[in-house]
Amino acid sequence: MALINTPIKPFKATAFKEGKFVDVTDADVKGKWAIFFFYPADFTFVCPTELEDLAGIYPTLQSLNVEVYSVSTDTHFSHKAWHDTSPAIGKISYYMLGDQSGQITNNFDVMRPGVGLADRATFLVDPEGVIQFMEITSEGVGRNATELLRKVKAAQYVAAHPGEVCPAKWEEGEETLAPSLDLVGKI
Amino acid sequence: MALINTPIKPFKATAFKEGKFVDVTDADVKGKWAIFFFYPADFTFVCPTELEDLAGIYPTLQSLNVEVYSVSTDTHFSHKAWHDTSPAIGKISYYMLGDQSGQITNNFDVMRPGVGLADRATFLVDPEGVIQFMEITSEGVGRNATELLRKVKAAQYVAAHPGEVCPAKWEEGEETLAPSLDLVGKI
Amino acid sequence: MALINTPIKPFKATAFKEGKFVDVTDADVKGKWAIFFFYPADFTFVCPTELEDLAGIYPTLQSLNVEVYSVSTDTHFSHKAWHDTSPAIGKISYYMLGDQSGQITNNFDVMRPGVGLADRATFLVDPEGVIQFMEITSEGVGRNATELLRKVKAAQYVAAHPGEVCPAKWEEGEETLAPSLDLVGKI
Amino acid sequence: MALINTPIKPFKATAFKEGKFVDVTDADVKGKWAIFFFYPADFTFVCPTELEDLAGIYPTLQSLNVEVYSVSTDTHFSHKAWHDTSPAIGKISYYMLGDQSGQITNNFDVMRPGVGLADRATFLVDPEGVIQFMEITSEGVGRNATELLRKVKAAQYVAAHPGEVCPAKWEEGEETLAPSLDLVGKI
Amino acid sequence: MALINTPIKPFKATAFKEGKFVDVTDADVKGKWAIFFFYPADFTFVCPTELEDLAGIYPTLQSLNVEVYSVSTDTHFSHKAWHDTSPAIGKISYYMLGDQSGQITNNFDVMRPGVGLADRATFLVDPEGVIQFMEITSEGVGRNATELLRKVKAAQYVAAHPGEVCPAKWEEGEETLAPSLDLVGKI
Amino acid sequence: MALINTPIKPFKATAFKEGKFVDVTDADVKGKWAIFFFYPADFTFVCPTELEDLAGIYPTLQSLNVEVYSVSTDTHFSHKAWHDTSPAIGKISYYMLGDQSGQITNNFDVMRPGVGLADRATFLVDPEGVIQFMEITSEGVGRNATELLRKVKAAQYVAAHPGEVCPAKWEEGEETLAPSLDLVGKI
Amino acid sequence: MALINTPIKPFKATAFKEGKFVDVTDADVKGKWAIFFFYPADFTFVCPTELEDLAGIYPTLQSLNVEVYSVSTDTHFSHKAWHDTSPAIGKISYYMLGDQSGQITNNFDVMRPGVGLADRATFLVDPEGVIQFMEITSEGVGRNATELLRKVKAAQYVAAHPGEVCPAKWEEGEETLAPSLDLVGKI
Amino acid sequence: MALINTPIKPFKATAFKEGKFVDVTDADVKGKWAIFFFYPADFTFVCPTELEDLAGIYPTLQSLNVEVYSVSTDTHFSHKAWHDTSPAIGKISYYMLGDQSGQITNNFDVMRPGVGLADRATFLVDPEGVIQFMEITSEGVGRNATELLRKVKAAQYVAAHPGEVCPAKWEEGEETLAPSLDLVGKI
Amino acid sequence: MALINTPIKPFKATAFKEGKFVDVTDADVKGKWAIFFFYPADFTFVCPTELEDLAGIYPTLQSLNVEVYSVSTDTHFSHKAWHDTSPAIGKISYYMLGDQSGQITNNFDVMRPGVGLADRATFLVDPEGVIQFMEITSEGVGRNATELLRKVKAAQYVAAHPGEVCPAKWEEGEETLAPSLDLVGKI
Amino acid sequence: MALINTPIKPFKATAFKEGKFVDVTDADVKGKWAIFFFYPADFTFVCPTELEDLAGIYPTLQSLNVEVYSVSTDTHFSHKAWHDTSPAIGKISYYMLGDQSGQITNNFDVMRPGVGLADRATFLVDPEGVIQFMEITSEGVGRNATELLRKVKAAQYVAAHPGEVCPAKWEEGEETLAPSLDLVGKI
Repeated sequence: MALINTPIKPFKATAFKEGKFVDVTDADVKGKWAIFFFYPADFTFVCPTELEDLAGIYPTLQSLNVEVYSVSTDTHFSHKAWHDTSPAIGKISYYMLGDQSGQITNNFDVMRPGVGLADRATFLVDPEGVIQFMEITSEGVGRNATELLRKVKAAQYVAAHPGEVCPAKWEEGEETLAPSLDLVGKI
Repeated sequence: MALINTPIKPFKATAFKEGKFVDVTDADVKGKWAIFFFYPADFTFVCPTELEDLAGIYPTLQSLNVEVYSVSTDTHFSHKAWHDTSPAIGKISYYMLGDQSGQITNNFDVMRPGVGLADRATFLVDPEGVIQFMEITSEGVGRNATELLRKVKAAQYVAAHPGEVCPAKWEEGEETLAPSLDLVGKI
Repeated sequence: MALINTPIKPFKATAFKEGKFVDVTDADVKGKWAIFFFYPADFTFVCPTELEDLAGIYPTLQSLNVEVYSVSTDTHFSHKAWHDTSPAIGKISYYMLGDQSGQITNNFDVMRPGVGLADRATFLVDPEGVIQFMEITSEGVGRNATELLRKVKAAQYVAAHPGEVCPAKWEEGEETLAPSLDLVGKI
Repeated sequence: MALINTPIKPFKATAFKEGKFVDVTDADVKGKWAIFFFYPADFTFVCPTELEDLAGIYPTLQSLNVEVYSVSTDTHFSHKAWHDTSPAIGKISYYMLGDQSGQITNNFDVMRPGVGLADRATFLVDPEGVIQFMEITSEGVGRNATELLRKVKAAQYVAAHPGEVCPAKWEEGEETLAPSLDLVGKI
Repeated sequence: MALINTPIKPFKATAFKEGKFVDVTDADVKGKWAIFFFYPADFTFVCPTELEDLAGIYPTLQSLNVEVYSVSTDTHFSHKAWHDTSPAIGKISYYMLGDQSGQITNNFDVMRPGVGLADRATFLVDPEGVIQFMEITSEGVGRNATELLRKVKAAQYVAAHPGEVCPAKWEEGEETLAPSLDLVGKI
Repeated sequence: MALINTPIKPFKATAFKEGKFVDVTDADVKGKWAIFFFYPADFTFVCPTELEDLAGIYPTLQSLNVEVYSVSTDTHFSHKAWHDTSPAIGKISYYMLGDQSGQITNNFDVMRPGVGLADRATFLVDPEGVIQFMEITSEGVGRNATELLRKVKAAQYVAAHPGEVCPAKWEEGEETLAPSLDLVGKI
Repeated sequence: MALINTPIKPFKATAFKEGKFVDVTDADVKGKWAIFFFYPADFTFVCPTELEDLAGIYPTLQSLNVEVYSVSTDTHFSHKAWHDTSPAIGKISYYMLGDQSGQITNNFDVMRPGVGLADRATFLVDPEGVIQFMEITSEGVGRNATELLRKVKAAQYVAAHPGEVCPAKWEEGEETLAPSLDLVGKI
Repeated sequence: MALINTPIKPFKATAFKEGKFVDVTDADVKGKWAIFFFYPADFTFVCPTELEDLAGIYPTLQSLNVEVYSVSTDTHFSHKAWHDTSPAIGKISYYMLGDQSGQITNNFDVMRPGVGLADRATFLVDPEGVIQFMEITSEGVGRNATELLRKVKAAQYVAAHPGEVCPAKWEEGEETLAPSLDLVGKI
Repeated sequence: MALINTPIKPFKATAFKEGKFVDVTDADVKGKWAIFFFYPADFTFVCPTELEDLAGIYPTLQSLNVEVYSVSTDTHFSHKAWHDTSPAIGKISYYMLGDQSGQITNNFDVMRPGVGLADRATFLVDPEGVIQFMEITSEGVGRNATELLRKVKAAQYVAAHPGEVCPAKWEEGEETLAPSLDLVGKI
Repeated sequence: MALINTPIKPFKATAFKEGKFVDVTDADVKGKWAIFFFYPADFTFVCPTELEDLAGIYPTLQSLNVEVYSVSTDTHFSHKAWHDTSPAIGKISYYMLGDQSGQITNNFDVMRPGVGLADRATFLVDPEGVIQFMEITSEGVGRNATELLRKVKAAQYVAAHPGEVCPAKWEEGEETLAPSLDLVGKI
């Protein structure tokens, strides 16, 4: 079975965030929406453009009560050094988790076996710690922060409006559907 | 470990496609790109809008050598009946696989335990039968066929151009990146 | 050993009954006589004639304190859609149970292995939840509601008259047998 | 899973038939249609009326290429003694199998656990040795040879006419159904 | 190890005794001496002469506080029918136990494997339920009730006179031996 | 299951016989009828009278092609010493097997657990090495060589006349029974 | 590991001692020094000379608070018979244990596998039941009671004088050694 | 079972012998009689007197084709150092095996558990490598080389004269016994 | 057991060496002496001074046919980035192995459990791939390249001069020891 | 995982120390810093120079609150004898542990498999009993007490000054490093 609709598992790690080293656990994650954004390694190629793309929507996400955690199997020391030296990464102000033990990467089932690096995977976690969305792309295809934002909003809308669902391609402000017996077999 | 970069497993099922019942196996899938589009049940709510959205890009996908298979744990009899009676579903001309035994849904690890229904999951499979992309959303959030098309094109570009990768939000025609030692730590 | 004389096992499912979706459990079944009437799939061929035949005796069965549950591995959504569109099925006012998880079909040991569909099987359950009669036919041979009614009456007669048994072909009102030592070897 | 559509298992037993003791094996059964008619014990009450009822249709069954085997866990010695002394049983000319080892009764999964007696069960086996119909009634309710004959004829009709199925209550000579895609959802 | 000097195991069965069906358990057996007399099947050949032979000494055995139980894997119904029709068996007034489940025959370890019939075996059980004598003959050799009576008397004598033993061929009234150290190596 | 109708198991032992020590194996036993006569210990009480009783019929047994082996868990040295000193044992000219390792006693399943002594058991073995009769008495009751001889003769008669059986108490020269279907239920 | 310095294990046996049969257990052994003297079989060759040799020093051993137990796998009956008939054995007044169950022989680990006879083994046990000396010789070499007596005395001396040890060939009355740090490397 | 009459197990070790370090294996041992003489530790108390005692009979043993191996869990380095510094040990010219790995001590089953030191044990091995004699004394009691020599001679006499055995206390030149049936029970 | 004197295990990794990414396997290591120098993480504190200290003796080590591999669980990308930005690390021209999968760190048994970082460990491997020296220090204590060089020279001297060993604190050019029997116990 | 940073395991042994035999356990070790200094065997070649080298710094170590334990699988008797006879070893006044059972050597994982001798290994244990440093050299390379002293001082400095670490080659009195975020990537 997939991890969708399951709670996140316990973890403990050190993150680099805005010039400091801070400890983060699964308990810290709850109470807010959260995005876990996995990538293979610091100092590599597609990753910085994705992380920079995500940095661009971070203020909007914060205003929507969404925290962001990027994760690789590098250490927090390495994250700081990358942040110090890369113009793209230097724009990041969200949490960069050091997962050199692989605990978080294994928790989310995205460790590449025998390689020691994470897949390019994105997870949306709701304030109860339950996974609401997941996406994994193979090497080489960049992710899209705009589409991610669309889905965050849809998930929040549905959570806030029990009894309604968002149809395909729904954008904030559009109509939703209210499932009922009468609709069965009528759409 | 996730299913990304693993080959699809053997299956055999009957599909409804354009007024006929046809048998489909994993062997039939190979040789072309393929999208497996899982949804919980016929005659329900969000599903038809997603399936209709996907029907809209089916001609484009066919021109890109991509076949489409929708999958639920309903029978092919049920798929035909739905196609006969629903205006949205009536627009579909791709394969609607009847997976009442759950074989395919379990193969892709998206069976909801104890429920007998599939998650809302999308998989892109390359012509060798290897999974290149996967996405799963919880109940209530509709998928987006336009973003799916963007990623199909990126995956095909990378497959055709070894040595290049697509940055975040890459759209067809934009520049790509060619990883090299010199770029390490420079982006 | 066969299921005859064993109690039904716990289950929970959603049924379509007279325009509504209602939850049904094994606890709801007890207290009345009950018929479980399994068939392979909605929207198929022999099945509707059998279900229609059963619908014809449903008022009589109700007057005899017997409830009726048809069961297939389709969803309750599918049952409703079939009820909406088929003239034969539209006559049904008993419970149509959605068993897409296969729980009930497996409970009664009539799942076709590897297929995900139920056998054509009929079970009579007494008010204590104990199976009193079972019948399974292969594909292609229709069942007979009149004979079913005869056996329901015989079972109810025997339950009400301890010490008597019904001989072959017994019809309501005919004489029964009272076993005794003197009869041993004398019939 | 039920025994329906599975082949009979190997057995060897001695039968009483028309004044002689003859050995019967599963191999002897094949090549003809066969009815296995289980009952708890010789010299008991409901059983003789059922066996006599079955004796009444035995000539018709023979003309339809159907052999009949009654089975209890008594010996063939006991069967002969019963046949000698009971007017009802004296009418029987089909095979009365002595199953004191329980092999056949266990093969058909109708041994009452801890009791050493068979259930009241009827099985129809086709000439390939595959079970096509089964019925089990609890103690006290007599079976009906007329309904059994109806189902034998339906099973033979379906076997002889691939592509046709018999609807509910079908009697010899009535119309059958020919399943096709066009009928899906139309009955 | 043999069953000699071990207690009988629990059982429950129905017997035919002097025109009635009565339940018998291992608890009923205790408090008296008991003979268990196993034979293969009702309505067979050597058996009746042995059972008749045993019937001849039954009054004497009763006067010695010994009960008699014949046992076969036939039912009590069959025992009654045999008693009704056979002149030899009609003389029996001891318990005829119906062991169609094989429980007693297996308890005494005399079930013929794969056959479902008991060996021709005799057991003497003392009032505490402990087996004091056993004898088994192959098919075809009849037992001898006179010799059995001799051994019952010897066993009762020894039980009543601790410190004495009966020499070979001892008959009631003859001298016995009293073992003592002085006799060691002197006989 | 009992040892009746099973072949004897392999063994090797040294016997005292007529002033000599000779090795005996299971292979030596075959080709003749054989009696194995177990007793607890040399130099004890009941045993010598039984062994003397058996010595009395040894010439007759030899003329009937029957060999005799007495067995205890004493050594062959002890057997010789007993034979030298006891008037009763001095009459023995059959084989006295030394079974101090317990192999033969365990083979025939008559070792008293935790005691190291054999039960008082008699076995008749046919020339193929198959056990045809067995008898075990508890401590204190002497066996009877005359009855043993009667049963040896009956067993030999039955082996020589297939199709006939000996009724109860049969003595040499008396009539036997020839089982046939007509006799079923008539004795 | 060897049995030296381990406690004797529980046993129960019957001994022949000075014209009587007496029960002996491991509990009876404690409180005195004890010699266990194993030999293969009564009525054999080397054994009597060894047992007679031991009988010669028995008075001395008794005066030293040492009890003697000879052990073979013969019964106490056999021991008595041997004592009655052999001049050498007739001199014995110590305990002759009957170990036909092999319990003691197995306890001391000197059973010859597959043979059922003890090795020629001697054990010295102290008053706490702990083995202080053991010796085993192969078949054919007689033991030496004089040397045994020497070792008994040495063991008793050491037990009585903690801090002293007996050098090689020590005889009663000779000097002993008192180990101390200063002696290390100096002898 | 004891090691008596079993072959020695494979080993490899380095010995100190007459000023040299030489490797010794189980293969080197065979072809001659051998004594293995275990003791706890170099530089201790009783041991040197025993080893010196053994050194005294070494020329005689050599003339009888017997090799001598002393064994402790010390190294060969330690043996040399002890030989260099101790007057008693300096007299030794037989093999002093270094068994610091415990292989030989464990092979002969004389390792003190948890201590890492050997028991005071002596073994006589014949030229085929089979153990003929064993002796173990607890701490504090010295062994006796004279008695050892007596037993070596007895063992060699028996090996050279099949059919004769040495009685108790036998010394070279004395009479032996020739076992025969006539002697059974006569000594 | 420790890894000393055992062969290195198979591995495959990518190293940063003098501006390039090169693959290194265990096969590449053999044929030369090799130092594996583990440290916890790039961009940390004690590590750079140790790595710089090692860089200082790298030319000397190369002239002695010794290759050097530093190892941490960081990627080769991270090593390059560190090399680009740190003055101390920029001096390194030996192999910096990226062991993000932990394979090498686990091979040498120096992974900190649950942490994902290596211990501060040094291993010297000879040209046959056998470990000759190992050293591990806890966090906080820096290693000493000068002492390491001393030991490399000693190991090479011993390898080149069989029969000689280096005493404590041996420096190149000093005398060595040639072990012989005469030296035992004399130093 | 390596033993570094793990607590020492329980042991009990006898040591030779300054002319006495004293018992030492793991409990005695705690409360002080401790060096465990393993070597293969007494009376060998490199070992004495290493032990002598260590003896030279023993007064300094004592003044630093460090106890020293040398360990080999020889006995304490052997240690005393070596101390008595070797000029180099005679200088030792630290604990020489006798580990003939191999318990301590196995505890520290430095037993050579199949050999029974320890590796040349050094361990530094802190007052809590936790291993802070370990070093193992193959046969032939002598250790260096001066470098050992340097590391003892560094370990003690770090233990006394939390927050500081010692760089490579640190000598007493030199500057240390205080790790902080600002230093990351700056050395």
